[in-house]
Amino acid sequence: MARRPLILNAVLMDCAGDIAHGLWSHPRDQSHRHNELDYWTGIARTLEAGGFDTLFLADVIGANDVYGGGPAAALRHAVQVPIGDPMLLVSAMAAATRSLGFGVTMNTSYSHPALLARSFSTLDHLTQGRVAWNIVTGFADSAARAMGDAAQIPHDERYDRAEDFLAAAYGLWEGSWDDDALVIDKAARVFTRPEGVRAIEHKGPWHRVSGIHLQSPSPQRTPLLFQAGASARGQEFAARHAECVFISGSPAQAREIVRDLRARAARHGRGRDDLRILVGVLPVLGRTEAEARDRFEEYARHASPEGGLTHFSQQTGIDLAALDPDEPIVERPTEAAQSFLEAVTKRAQGRVWTVRQVRESMRLGCRNQAVVGTAVQVADALQAFVEEADVDGFNILRTVVPECFEDVSALLIPELRSRGLVRPAPAEGPLRQRLFGHARLPANHPGAAFRHHPALQEA
Amino acid sequence: MARRPLILNAVLMDCAGDIAHGLWSHPRDQSHRHNELDYWTGIARTLEAGGFDTLFLADVIGANDVYGGGPAAALRHAVQVPIGDPMLLVSAMAAATRSLGFGVTMNTSYSHPALLARSFSTLDHLTQGRVAWNIVTGFADSAARAMGDAAQIPHDERYDRAEDFLAAAYGLWEGSWDDDALVIDKAARVFTRPEGVRAIEHKGPWHRVSGIHLQSPSPQRTPLLFQAGASARGQEFAARHAECVFISGSPAQAREIVRDLRARAARHGRGRDDLRILVGVLPVLGRTEAEARDRFEEYARHASPEGGLTHFSQQTGIDLAALDPDEPIVERPTEAAQSFLEAVTKRAQGRVWTVRQVRESMRLGCRNQAVVGTAVQVADALQAFVEEADVDGFNILRTVVPECFEDVSALLIPELRSRGLVRPAPAEGPLRQRLFGHARLPANHPGAAFRHHPALQEA
Repeated sequence: MARRPLILNAVLMDCAGDIAHGLWSHPRDQSHRHNELDYWTGIARTLEAGGFDTLFLADVIGANDVYGGGPAAALRHAVQVPIGDPMLLVSAMAAATRSLGFGVTMNTSYSHPALLARSFSTLDHLTQGRVAWNIVTGFADSAARAMGDAAQIPHDERYDRAEDFLAAAYGLWEGSWDDDALVIDKAARVFTRPEGVRAIEHKGPWHRVSGIHLQSPSPQRTPLLFQAGASARGQEFAARHAECVFISGSPAQAREIVRDLRARAARHGRGRDDLRILVGVLPVLGRTEAEARDRFEEYARHASPEGGLTHFSQQTGIDLAALDPDEPIVERPTEAAQSFLEAVTKRAQGRVWTVRQVRESMRLGCRNQAVVGTAVQVADALQAFVEEADVDGFNILRTVVPECFEDVSALLIPELRSRGLVRPAPAEGPLRQRLFGHARLPANHPGAAFRHHPALQEA
Repeated sequence: MARRPLILNAVLMDCAGDIAHGLWSHPRDQSHRHNELDYWTGIARTLEAGGFDTLFLADVIGANDVYGGGPAAALRHAVQVPIGDPMLLVSAMAAATRSLGFGVTMNTSYSHPALLARSFSTLDHLTQGRVAWNIVTGFADSAARAMGDAAQIPHDERYDRAEDFLAAAYGLWEGSWDDDALVIDKAARVFTRPEGVRAIEHKGPWHRVSGIHLQSPSPQRTPLLFQAGASARGQEFAARHAECVFISGSPAQAREIVRDLRARAARHGRGRDDLRILVGVLPVLGRTEAEARDRFEEYARHASPEGGLTHFSQQTGIDLAALDPDEPIVERPTEAAQSFLEAVTKRAQGRVWTVRQVRESMRLGCRNQAVVGTAVQVADALQAFVEEADVDGFNILRTVVPECFEDVSALLIPELRSRGLVRPAPAEGPLRQRLFGHARLPANHPGAAFRHHPALQEA
């Protein structure tokens, strides 16, 4: 097919329970080892050998404490706690691999642009251009409180601040150093030509930066940009800045989101292939359909619906523990939940749920529904998804780790490969080069406007 | 001897020019490869095999722009620029080693206590307890400007803020989780006992934290604490909080600093062995004295005195490029330089220097004077240093990397070992356990006061 290869992105967090809650308790699950380096280097090798393009590390920086009015359920069921800093895992995994990309979540609300820019430049150097930044602006009030604020910044203002943050970071990444500034000329004893480096003077409403970027240009300069905002403001931000956008929903739901995102991106002058949209899937595979169904039932016996409700309470801002199980869940206008509910409501197409119904729908401890079957059946479902919704790839969500990624590698990817849907073998080179054909931001990306053009300045 | 083994700490930064400026241009020097993972994993393996206890990664987060009124000289001579985020190097080096400790510099002025605490807990887990935090409060105005401030916070206030920061961090590390809270009981489906975890409510003048620590207790809980403050306020801070303190100077100068630090520590109720003091040395070794002297002259031919002056200008806040070479350097009362000049003046014992004299003294591109000789001669010098100044170990500064650490490993450490001055073989286990005999903070450390004592609370 003329379409580019689908992008396969494995999704994890540096914790035992990120999405399919309770499955950490499965005898074969290893995610309780998330504080051990061997766990991560092993997963990275598995993903690279299997044909995944990237490992995406999600993150939260506050405890899930809406359900029951405190973190007890989250702690008991390991719902994203304990959780480590995902950025610190990357260099060990990079040393264990050659081509796998690494997407790291960092929050613009609690970082300084100059420090974040240096950190990503460092990782992009160390990985030889294999790093992506998942831009998040904050979600939980618990994170805001941990950071010393009474509550978080209002939703849309967070995105305004993120725009300001990106302007500062683009200046540092794209504008501060010329490509030929770093010479490392031992004979002439010149490490950097000073004329090729300039200070950035960013004076935004929220962020100020004055000075040169402290790192030399890395293979990608600006890391590949991921985003997952579900609200209208979040989608507008994604359509403008993101290169890979993460969405969720059924094929019919995804189709509408994709259409909207692509229209928004086009209004920003970006082309069809400048924005890749990945949808989350939760595959459960077997060599036969019966084996897959057995495996699903076996997994389901270890799932924690209460863990799923704990997570869902956090996402919606509604304490589901405080509701009668058969009472319809009424949307409360908590600001923290606004964007999420907006998306959920759109996807639920008006249907009203009770806590019991939500709980019963969480067969694997999460709202995501599994795609269960043989490699051929799951590949059929993914292919149909691509055709119906026009997505560019999949976020492969975990069940039992690392078995779930081993299964996708051994069964599903060979089938997708035989259909010509994914790349035939792991490619090397910078991540953006492999996925988009160019190592640096394209000229129509807003970050490209921050490049230094001496001719223009001299004119 | 009854004394504990001396601590040997290799000092580097994630850049090509950290201390002996210009030596990056030596044909055998590899520090221009600081953005390559192999460079760091190779150094880590060399240090561990050679018998070093720790690798300490210093850092700056602003460009050296006092000399000449801009960053041109720093860029040309690679004086701490380009520079990467040291924290991101650790997991790759940890995966390549078993016992080497890693000291990482992080600035309290531009971090959130909850995020920094999570990052160090993550690293302490991933390294199985081999992490130290070098607490810095900021130095350069250029860093403050990069972070959006007009100038940095006044010197003593920075330490007050750091005290407040540490109180929040100690609460998270020491007080939030009981040792037996994390159970990971797959059969009972309990990951963490919620009763064993409590929120920290820190309301300080500068920092606020409200919530549980997001990471479970790591082997050391609080990372081993390093500090290097040279001012009276910095030494008071070090005497209270630091477990390893870095100083510099001649044996006679060090002796006074050590006496002062130990007296301060005793006033805080800390014992002789609770505070280890390491002094910086710059060894240049040879198999014969002539070989060592030849090597020194060979290194000196690649040194950059201008790079050294650039660094010294930053430390003092005085633009040495603007002075007549033979004019005495007059101390200007710039706040940024206050603490450094205080120490320099103390050590210079009233002698007035000119720029030319400073420049000529920088034979290896830095103010530090090399210790040149055979292993026996250098070991004699170090042993005399220990006896005169009562120091507990050495910060081994770089010359030509990695050759300098290979030489120390091959020549000096065996000699020190034969004298019983250093440990006979690399030890394993948490870093604090190896160096101090206990993995956690001792009861007389201020961080220990943040531990949760249920009996006291119930009484």
